[in-house]
Amino acid sequence: MHHQQLNIGLFGLGVVGSGLLEVLKNSPLAGIQIKKIGVKTTGKPRPVPPEMLHYNPLDILDDPDINVVIETINGSDEAFDIVSEAMRRGKHVITSNKKMLAEHFQELIDLQSHTGVTLLYESAACAAIPIIKTLETHFANEPVDRISGIFNGTSNFILSKMTREKLEFDAALAQAQALGFAEQDPSSDIDAWDAAYKLVLLAAHSHGILVHPESVLRFGIRHIRAEDIQFAQSKGGKIKLFPVCSRNGASIRYLYVLPALVLPSDPLFHVEDEYNGVNLEPLYSGLQFFSGRGAGSLPTGAAIAGDLAVLQRGFQYKYTKHHLNGHSHLGSDLDICVYVRGDKNLDFDHFLFKNILEKGENYRVGVLSAAWLQANQGWLNERQVFIMRYAF
Amino acid sequence: MHHQQLNIGLFGLGVVGSGLLEVLKNSPLAGIQIKKIGVKTTGKPRPVPPEMLHYNPLDILDDPDINVVIETINGSDEAFDIVSEAMRRGKHVITSNKKMLAEHFQELIDLQSHTGVTLLYESAACAAIPIIKTLETHFANEPVDRISGIFNGTSNFILSKMTREKLEFDAALAQAQALGFAEQDPSSDIDAWDAAYKLVLLAAHSHGILVHPESVLRFGIRHIRAEDIQFAQSKGGKIKLFPVCSRNGASIRYLYVLPALVLPSDPLFHVEDEYNGVNLEPLYSGLQFFSGRGAGSLPTGAAIAGDLAVLQRGFQYKYTKHHLNGHSHLGSDLDICVYVRGDKNLDFDHFLFKNILEKGENYRVGVLSAAWLQANQGWLNERQVFIMRYAF
Repeated sequence: MHHQQLNIGLFGLGVVGSGLLEVLKNSPLAGIQIKKIGVKTTGKPRPVPPEMLHYNPLDILDDPDINVVIETINGSDEAFDIVSEAMRRGKHVITSNKKMLAEHFQELIDLQSHTGVTLLYESAACAAIPIIKTLETHFANEPVDRISGIFNGTSNFILSKMTREKLEFDAALAQAQALGFAEQDPSSDIDAWDAAYKLVLLAAHSHGILVHPESVLRFGIRHIRAEDIQFAQSKGGKIKLFPVCSRNGASIRYLYVLPALVLPSDPLFHVEDEYNGVNLEPLYSGLQFFSGRGAGSLPTGAAIAGDLAVLQRGFQYKYTKHHLNGHSHLGSDLDICVYVRGDKNLDFDHFLFKNILEKGENYRVGVLSAAWLQANQGWLNERQVFIMRYAF
Repeated sequence: MHHQQLNIGLFGLGVVGSGLLEVLKNSPLAGIQIKKIGVKTTGKPRPVPPEMLHYNPLDILDDPDINVVIETINGSDEAFDIVSEAMRRGKHVITSNKKMLAEHFQELIDLQSHTGVTLLYESAACAAIPIIKTLETHFANEPVDRISGIFNGTSNFILSKMTREKLEFDAALAQAQALGFAEQDPSSDIDAWDAAYKLVLLAAHSHGILVHPESVLRFGIRHIRAEDIQFAQSKGGKIKLFPVCSRNGASIRYLYVLPALVLPSDPLFHVEDEYNGVNLEPLYSGLQFFSGRGAGSLPTGAAIAGDLAVLQRGFQYKYTKHHLNGHSHLGSDLDICVYVRGDKNLDFDHFLFKNILEKGENYRVGVLSAAWLQANQGWLNERQVFIMRYAF
């Protein structure tokens, strides 16, 4: 498919879709044309000729002339219907929908190999950072020990604000919402779902494991308080929401998302506000660090344009690590050193600490098993306990 | 050329060549085999079966079974002879030789298009950081405002040592040499030739301009003193050897390599010792930062293995920016704000400062034209004047 004419059906004209239009208007790609745009709401002012707009998805999916579908809508179920139907009809797909991808990952990869079409999603993980292409090309064959980072700009913005301005969580969240860095319902970001979706996507390319996001051990920043930030500062560090996939030998993988104490020697320490960062630790190349904008109209639009450019050159994800390590599975024997902070009535005897490194009036630093944390996630969140990875 | 069997003739079995062997031994690539190794010195102990070793380059170049030549020798003239002859004979080439590439860039690109073979050189610029692939794939079509960074691990190691341990240049250089981070003749690194070669390579992919390294404005760190480091610290910054290519409109490019004052808000501030870093500023995506190991046996060997893996998939550099901006040329009207420090007898009236921001006993901070700096490079170096970019 070298320099085949690409006729695009774009679904969604929100922040991402209009960013893509802007990028392609100013830096057009030869042989690429947006033919139809699928939207939902009628009567809204739109920056495109009205004849391009279509309100029935089938107007696009039925069009034999359209060979690429770009999906940028909200709502993962509807997105999955559009994406999977487009693929079944032989259309290539580019999507930025991390939730949809993470929840249907195996199905979509299978669909890709059955239909022979190409599915690309660089913008779905850390928007402007081309980490998936990097894993798929340069590091396709080099074993990766660990991938970690800051994958969620909203929570990083809130944590940066709390740290710099000594705010409590609610005040920082309200400011993030006022500035458009957090949604009115912020749960996907602050409960670490968004970071978990991205971790699921990246772990497939870095470590070859396909995991459902529900299986990922996950604590967010909803229960953080100014005193936790102060605790981190007393250790010389900052708190970042930290997704990680690591390996133990050839076949065992650990994935989790936890707030984490990060020290100045870690490049992630310096990633502030809405920026994202990735620490990649390939076996031979040593620590690689990438940072860039994790969201925004133009950065995300440019990431989709980047996918279009490589699609035109015939680029496909090969999932080499998955083919090499298809037998890999999620390990269950991981111990994590954590800081646990509750209210004054929290009884720390309920925690199965393997050892305790430090005690405070309402916190402990000690080692818990990942399995225990996962099994007790429900009541820990109900009791508003804040959990943070503590590691030097 | 999808998954064609690659039979390799490797030239050079030094740090890089043996790193590649180690990587391929531990993480073999299906369909890739090293068939012959060209070396110079007989009788040296080598970690390979003696029948693989060849002392006449023609043993490899004449072998019709060898379809890929990997070149990792020192000496750029001999390397150019090997690489260009291999290409003329229809063999793909992977090389880590930045000097050879930068000095013969146009010839090699022309040779590639005439012969139809593939020439890859990811390891030649910032070793482990896959910046060329990133520019060639994800950012192939997005205009880049600026690329800059820390491309030379040796000078960065010396600068880090001087800063941390308050050493003078000679002492830091001697330590770098003792630890193997600097060569016995360190001129290529400390006079910024090495950084200039890498800048020439990256500027072709980021900005589409092909420049001979001799045309790049270039001052190194040979004349730096502890007092310069102290000056930088008094401004809250650090000194880094800083290559940069920027653009002015569609067609004018500026390239230079200068020591530079770098502040904590710049990700490069945190790149220490032998690490390299790249700041990439694409028009829509916003600042992207990459860091990783800039040298070393395994990181460089892994970068060559990464080139082999994508070569096998049919990947080639397209030089899209060069095709889009082939009319671009080196601008001559750039002003640079610099810190200039000499000895007590240096007469600052000889400098055509456009304005002066700060005066010290033996230094000035002010604006000079790049053309003036380039025209006066000779005597400034003879007088051991230290020049540093000063910009906030």
